[in-house]
Amino acid sequence: MTLPTQYGVTLPDWVADEVAGADLSTDEAKMALVNRLARRNFMEKTGGPFAALVVSGGELISAGVNLVLASGLSSSHAEVVALSLAQTAVGSWDLGANGAKRELIVNWRPCVQCYGATMWSGVTRLVVAGDGPELEQLTKFDEGPMVADWAAQFEARGISVTQNVLREEALDVYRAYGSFVESGDVTVYNARDSGPIEK
Amino acid sequence: MTLPTQYGVTLPDWVADEVAGADLSTDEAKMALVNRLARRNFMEKTGGPFAALVVSGGELISAGVNLVLASGLSSSHAEVVALSLAQTAVGSWDLGANGAKRELIVNWRPCVQCYGATMWSGVTRLVVAGDGPELEQLTKFDEGPMVADWAAQFEARGISVTQNVLREEALDVYRAYGSFVESGDVTVYNARDSGPIEK
Repeated sequence: MTLPTQYGVTLPDWVADEVAGADLSTDEAKMALVNRLARRNFMEKTGGPFAALVVSGGELISAGVNLVLASGLSSSHAEVVALSLAQTAVGSWDLGANGAKRELIVNWRPCVQCYGATMWSGVTRLVVAGDGPELEQLTKFDEGPMVADWAAQFEARGISVTQNVLREEALDVYRAYGSFVESGDVTVYNARDSGPIEK
Repeated sequence: MTLPTQYGVTLPDWVADEVAGADLSTDEAKMALVNRLARRNFMEKTGGPFAALVVSGGELISAGVNLVLASGLSSSHAEVVALSLAQTAVGSWDLGANGAKRELIVNWRPCVQCYGATMWSGVTRLVVAGDGPELEQLTKFDEGPMVADWAAQFEARGISVTQNVLREEALDVYRAYGSFVESGDVTVYNARDSGPIEK
């Protein structure tokens, strides 16, 4: 057989419309855009209710949404998409090369895959809407086994962490997604539909 | 500015030559191929000394190597490359869809990013050459903070784990890579060159 030799991810066209002219002057403004992208993403059925931005000095470097369903790749979570697009734009696997300060804005503490993906990306700051069991409870996603001191582990690697930015607004998105799941309108793409597991 | 909208990964041509006709009849045979790919990968300077296979019933679905340097994407570790290529080949984000049994063979316990990537991929079995601090000690890579019961967490999600397959041969590859690093011949692509951190 012929082995596969390429894979790739393409951002949906609607993302550019959504980010055009967006205010990025404060953490709250950035997170408001993330929440908006996350909500639109599951409505568009391109993936789960997750979005992420890479921002530098108020300038948007990339915007990502969860594209597991659209791309057919289980790794294309919002953080991986945003970080990979940013690395493509700047031409380096290290977003912190040459002293650059770039930050990742995302609508919850990353899952265990994206925890590592963020750690290896070169960003110097992570901003999350929140942390805690609400995400798994509301959406049925499994976030994986994480160390308890996850934020301290980021700080030890030179990545500062800011939490609880528009937390309630993020939970509103997860609640809306949860209602969609209940109604059978969307696919929760956990492999084998196993859902959250006691950790 | 125009936002980036695409990213992708292409496997180097030499991988196809290396896997052609390879014996995949036992775990040891599969791991011997992984070790061979891992060694060649750093010699070719496409990335770190890591490779991975997705295999089903003795048939090779995909082969991946670490392509962080070649692709410019920090997430393109061997596991992500192999899993993404396999998902592209089968046309699904879930390698376990419809009861399929597919396994991932890799030359050490995955880093924290690839721990999650493996968990969400749908594979039903993971085979690793080993686990433990030797990888970080020999290569200077940071593998990230992992839960102590990492293997049990896989098993709880329906992914069986087989360890210590050609462990010494894997360590030989890391030793060879470590010598290359000492000689200044390769790039250890940890962002900000921070190296392993006390965990």
